[in-house]
Amino acid sequence: MKPHHSSPILLPLGFTFSAGVAGIKPSGRPDVALAEASPETTAAAVFTRNRVVAAPVEVGREFLAKTRGRVRALVVNSGNANCATGPAGIRLCRRVCSDLARIFEVRTEEVFPSSTGIIGVPLPVERLVAKLPELVAARAATERGVAQFAEAIMTTDTKPKLASTHFRTGQGNVTLLGIAKGSGMIHPQLATMLVFLFTDVRARPHQLRRLLRNVLDQTFHSISVDGDTSTNDTVLVLASGRSAVSLDKAVVEEQFTRALVEVCWSLSEQIVEDGEGAQHKVRLRIEQARNRKEAIEIAQAIARSLLVKTACAGADPNWGRILAAIGASGRTIASDRIDILIADQLVCHRGMHHGFDSGLAHAEMVKPSYEIRVKLARGRAAAVFLTTDLSTEYVRINAEYST
Amino acid sequence: MKPHHSSPILLPLGFTFSAGVAGIKPSGRPDVALAEASPETTAAAVFTRNRVVAAPVEVGREFLAKTRGRVRALVVNSGNANCATGPAGIRLCRRVCSDLARIFEVRTEEVFPSSTGIIGVPLPVERLVAKLPELVAARAATERGVAQFAEAIMTTDTKPKLASTHFRTGQGNVTLLGIAKGSGMIHPQLATMLVFLFTDVRARPHQLRRLLRNVLDQTFHSISVDGDTSTNDTVLVLASGRSAVSLDKAVVEEQFTRALVEVCWSLSEQIVEDGEGAQHKVRLRIEQARNRKEAIEIAQAIARSLLVKTACAGADPNWGRILAAIGASGRTIASDRIDILIADQLVCHRGMHHGFDSGLAHAEMVKPSYEIRVKLARGRAAAVFLTTDLSTEYVRINAEYST
Repeated sequence: MKPHHSSPILLPLGFTFSAGVAGIKPSGRPDVALAEASPETTAAAVFTRNRVVAAPVEVGREFLAKTRGRVRALVVNSGNANCATGPAGIRLCRRVCSDLARIFEVRTEEVFPSSTGIIGVPLPVERLVAKLPELVAARAATERGVAQFAEAIMTTDTKPKLASTHFRTGQGNVTLLGIAKGSGMIHPQLATMLVFLFTDVRARPHQLRRLLRNVLDQTFHSISVDGDTSTNDTVLVLASGRSAVSLDKAVVEEQFTRALVEVCWSLSEQIVEDGEGAQHKVRLRIEQARNRKEAIEIAQAIARSLLVKTACAGADPNWGRILAAIGASGRTIASDRIDILIADQLVCHRGMHHGFDSGLAHAEMVKPSYEIRVKLARGRAAAVFLTTDLSTEYVRINAEYST
Repeated sequence: MKPHHSSPILLPLGFTFSAGVAGIKPSGRPDVALAEASPETTAAAVFTRNRVVAAPVEVGREFLAKTRGRVRALVVNSGNANCATGPAGIRLCRRVCSDLARIFEVRTEEVFPSSTGIIGVPLPVERLVAKLPELVAARAATERGVAQFAEAIMTTDTKPKLASTHFRTGQGNVTLLGIAKGSGMIHPQLATMLVFLFTDVRARPHQLRRLLRNVLDQTFHSISVDGDTSTNDTVLVLASGRSAVSLDKAVVEEQFTRALVEVCWSLSEQIVEDGEGAQHKVRLRIEQARNRKEAIEIAQAIARSLLVKTACAGADPNWGRILAAIGASGRTIASDRIDILIADQLVCHRGMHHGFDSGLAHAEMVKPSYEIRVKLARGRAAAVFLTTDLSTEYVRINAEYST
């Protein structure tokens, strides 16, 4: 039951999908995606903690509060973040929602908006709304519809990101499908990352909210590509209830949580693997911390260090940079108790060089994926955190003169 | 009186300098530097806040405490940081100090050690101490000696870093000379940065300590190249008292503080200009903050953003990235009150796009040095902070497989 995008896409009951080209992206690639949800669908969302938030984040948050967690349609555009666009941006975002609501004959507040792309440029709203009738007509509960949705929300992503899983209960089967985008500006607290989760479990909004927050901590909040947090990030979960399996039963809640972790972890891995210019996915395993917060903070300090990230780009087992990054984490660690392992080989023992085979370590670090393990000798807490190397390609992608 | 390294080097009374090749650097370049200070010389130092500290930092801190701020000699090696070397590293560091103390017939604790270079490799102590007699014999109070000292402490620096100034008082003239190294791992709290300040003013150690701390905040703590903080950083000031001008007079203290700011700011600029792979020195001027701490934190958030740094590398006036970095600073700013100017041109007004000449902005950002100004509309505090772009060259320098 390992969920992965190459596996067949499992479709939860109660949703239809479509996507198309509205002409927002100069490239002419698909840039608008639509999902319709059946009546009774409940919803919960978590948004970026950046203080600068895009219009759709403000509007989406307001709508969810007004409907107390009800969503009937989701409309996402890529190519324009509708951020730093002031009151006009808010108006344009509402306009998209109200136009779509009219077609579906639902309330404007039941349409959830989302945007990703360039900041500070007015949303080309006319192109977007002109495309809606066609998207509504084309929507379907098919793998193809889902694949098109996933492609249309991409920006610098090189691959669509999908994961799905299902589980059996005494009352019937439950399916969970996740679609994500994100490859740069990735750091804890959701950075230029959009994640849409669709399930046919029956859940109350407050149940979804609670489970979502728990699961985020060990998935999307445990990855970092470049340390930047964005203005538009959103994780939305929609539950149609069409499986007739209710979350009220403790055993179902447990199964659903496990499914949520699986799908979100798979999407997290896909996001990191597709990190801008990333050649390596590095799994940081921080062990023997005082508590989980400490483990996460130390992982973040390592993941944020440009010297560690460039050492990873060069497949250089330069453990001194890792030790220095831990020392700069702000935690009062004792460096002479720290062990560091690269791909299972001890390279630093009690804060000092440990005779190791550097050729072997280099060979492991050339691989697309490997683990760096840090033992702090302070306690029993641990955390796993995914990050990437920093390559010249990352700089090239982000240094292009866009204007 | 603008101090700069291209100006003639002014020599404070009471110091001699020399440098040479001990064979620590594989390149065969100069890697050991010596300064002797006359009797009665007082000292104060500030060290890295990284929890992982090198042996010379531990030893230097202990010696200064034991002597209550007295130093007779300074010995610096480059090519080896003597960090993550355990108790053996401490022993080797003391050995260097005691060997030099014996030659000078001073106490071991009056020799101040400093190291910079690779982490986790044992210090080749025999080569180092074998060189000491020659360095002692060659020492001189000359510009040449100072220039050699500055060159011998370089690691990835491409240029030696020197600044000096002097001022007149009723009691006589005072000279201040600064020598620094550092080009990567530069971030507030002193990162792979060594700074040695020599003056002939007469000062008590506690006076030097107080002035040094005040001046650091607005100079070396206001620069960032790559956000990494190092294990060896040290700023040391030595005051020989040979000018016979005392710091006790308020007017002299004021003049000396101004001289200290000038020299430290010049060295800060030189460090940022020589930032690894840096093509641009970017001056961040944060205005209208609630307090200076807020202004500094927002400057740091901008300086740390890879997306801002790569935009600078591409000379791209992508103000949306600057706004997003401010939003991610952790400060509860209101984005709709923020103005951003690039090289005096308003590009973002009240958090929104402001019609601006992007070709002109690009042309300014192509220059080696320019200013980004942020107005927060929250208060009256301000800060100036120096940083660099992030180029593919930075990645190349740091991704080289060193083992």
